[in-house]
Amino acid sequence: MKPAAPPTLQSLWLRDDGRAVCIIDQRALPFHLRVEELSSVEAVCTAIRDMHLRGAPLIGVAAAYGMYLAALEASRGGGPEYLHDAARKLVATRPTAVNLAWAVRRQLAELAEADDPEVRVRLSLRTAREIEEEDIERCRRIGEHGRPLLADAFARGRERVNVLTHCNAGWLACVRHGTATSPIYAAQRAGIPVHVWVDETRPRNQGARLTAWELERAGVPHTVIVDNTGGHLMQRGLVDLVIVGADRVSRRGDVANKIGTYLKALAARDNGIPFYAALPTSSIDWSIRDGLAEIPIEERDAREVRYVEGLAGGEPTEVLVTSPSSPAANYAFDVTPARLVTALITESGVVPATEEGLAGLRPGDKPKD
Amino acid sequence: MKPAAPPTLQSLWLRDDGRAVCIIDQRALPFHLRVEELSSVEAVCTAIRDMHLRGAPLIGVAAAYGMYLAALEASRGGGPEYLHDAARKLVATRPTAVNLAWAVRRQLAELAEADDPEVRVRLSLRTAREIEEEDIERCRRIGEHGRPLLADAFARGRERVNVLTHCNAGWLACVRHGTATSPIYAAQRAGIPVHVWVDETRPRNQGARLTAWELERAGVPHTVIVDNTGGHLMQRGLVDLVIVGADRVSRRGDVANKIGTYLKALAARDNGIPFYAALPTSSIDWSIRDGLAEIPIEERDAREVRYVEGLAGGEPTEVLVTSPSSPAANYAFDVTPARLVTALITESGVVPATEEGLAGLRPGDKPKD
Repeated sequence: MKPAAPPTLQSLWLRDDGRAVCIIDQRALPFHLRVEELSSVEAVCTAIRDMHLRGAPLIGVAAAYGMYLAALEASRGGGPEYLHDAARKLVATRPTAVNLAWAVRRQLAELAEADDPEVRVRLSLRTAREIEEEDIERCRRIGEHGRPLLADAFARGRERVNVLTHCNAGWLACVRHGTATSPIYAAQRAGIPVHVWVDETRPRNQGARLTAWELERAGVPHTVIVDNTGGHLMQRGLVDLVIVGADRVSRRGDVANKIGTYLKALAARDNGIPFYAALPTSSIDWSIRDGLAEIPIEERDAREVRYVEGLAGGEPTEVLVTSPSSPAANYAFDVTPARLVTALITESGVVPATEEGLAGLRPGDKPKD
Repeated sequence: MKPAAPPTLQSLWLRDDGRAVCIIDQRALPFHLRVEELSSVEAVCTAIRDMHLRGAPLIGVAAAYGMYLAALEASRGGGPEYLHDAARKLVATRPTAVNLAWAVRRQLAELAEADDPEVRVRLSLRTAREIEEEDIERCRRIGEHGRPLLADAFARGRERVNVLTHCNAGWLACVRHGTATSPIYAAQRAGIPVHVWVDETRPRNQGARLTAWELERAGVPHTVIVDNTGGHLMQRGLVDLVIVGADRVSRRGDVANKIGTYLKALAARDNGIPFYAALPTSSIDWSIRDGLAEIPIEERDAREVRYVEGLAGGEPTEVLVTSPSSPAANYAFDVTPARLVTALITESGVVPATEEGLAGLRPGDKPKD
């Protein structure tokens, strides 16, 4: 079967016949748009493990569809244990991915209600679609809440609103809209002229490769810059606001995000420019108050610093970019203290990055500690 | 003739027979150590123009030796106009290089005194050697003045002193010692254990390619990091001081240096870490007070952002690293305001980055404006 054409600005979708989930293989971006059809839970596991797709929300949705494919397979002859096996395999692909484990647990809880394999297929498809729709709606609402921040900058008489962003917190990391990018797309839909400075985001270049590509596809004017440039642009009045994503936020508003985020927050503060993190409230870790002291920072393979992947002669090629005998270190994230964060943009509204500001977002009434 | 072996930690030297100047071809670094022998003024022009060597002090010294080679050539039959032609050609290779023009003018002034071609050869060689020795001595003194800053950090009980540096202000940019690196080498000679965090310094990666290579050659422990990492390291107590070079300093101490320097100065300030710029006093532009308003920032070809050069299969290879249809911008420098600079390390001593602090370094008595 010919691969399905991707719907506009969407990173994952169910194939028309409902027997496979289609994804954009992000390893090939931005040089090739390669659609991959995952027609078995095994294929979903491989795609997650080998990072054909990435981004916590997207991984969760993919895993939910993985459970649907497992139910389909079980209906063709697997026993009830088949689903539990599939769940274990899916969770093992990225052991620290909270959304993934959550989506798989939710599927198992739903499926525990049903005995009939065909009912399980229908139930698991419905649940996967719900998880997908919830993610899309959450991202859409982040955009709606963030849009006025860009509209205000435009109303202050700028010809266009200049946003700076770091890494990729766009629709390639979610299903649609993205988080940091969602206010940008919402502003664009509202007719506000927006231009985005895209940090290339070394060492893995997700900004230059993914954010730039998805903005290009969405028709949003943008310019790629090296990560060193943002401070200079802010000094020269060329940035109106900074919007980044967040991997994890402490309950007082400290923001763990891709390495280098903290430097941009410092420059924004030094130049009186608002600095926002956009995130679903599920990224708030209520068990943590002091993000600097309590959020562990992953150290990744130094190879990612020493080698850069790009296109040479039409082929993906890796080049060594450092002195061959010199060691390198690769810290993946940093923590931006809440004092440098103007506000958090969430699906429930824009709130100050303070313990009081976040309190209203907390599910349930009682703090856990 | 077999190429001369380079003396240790020196970027330029006269060949033993005195008939050629040898340089390290920096385009091949860090992957190959290629020594180039320049035996004509034409060869020196090409080497400067095509950036076989770079760094303002080094270019000045190379041009001085270029004038010596021109005098040699003139002694074999060129008229007196030959030297003026050579001077014009040398200056035209990098029209904005102040040191280059200054070195050539100094040679012409010396040579104006002499009529005999053989005397001119001797005079021009002596002058080139003087200019070289003055540069080495200036850099050595920057090191001696900066060394106590590292010694103090060590005396405060650290196992090793962690210095962070940006770009290349090392002996590859000068003849020996370097500027920002000179205090590091001086500390190493004094037995102080030093470790250097080397910013890779996108887009041209002079940190990863040149600074890392020269520290490796000098046996100084170091680690290459992406430019995004410095803030995180400072938050975690892993940096004791920052030392960078300077392309131009205003008379109140604003520092124009490689793009990204400002972000590191902000992070140093936020974490109570001293931030130093090391420079010869000749880099102070007394005609400028407000560096941010008055120092123009060069915008270079966006290609340097979109393509990265490295080694693939043993061959220098360029890879495209950004989304192919996305534009890029390439600002070469930024300006760090004096308020973020702890002090300037010069050949005449360590001075506060203030108008009063710098005043003592000013040649002559009267301000120019």
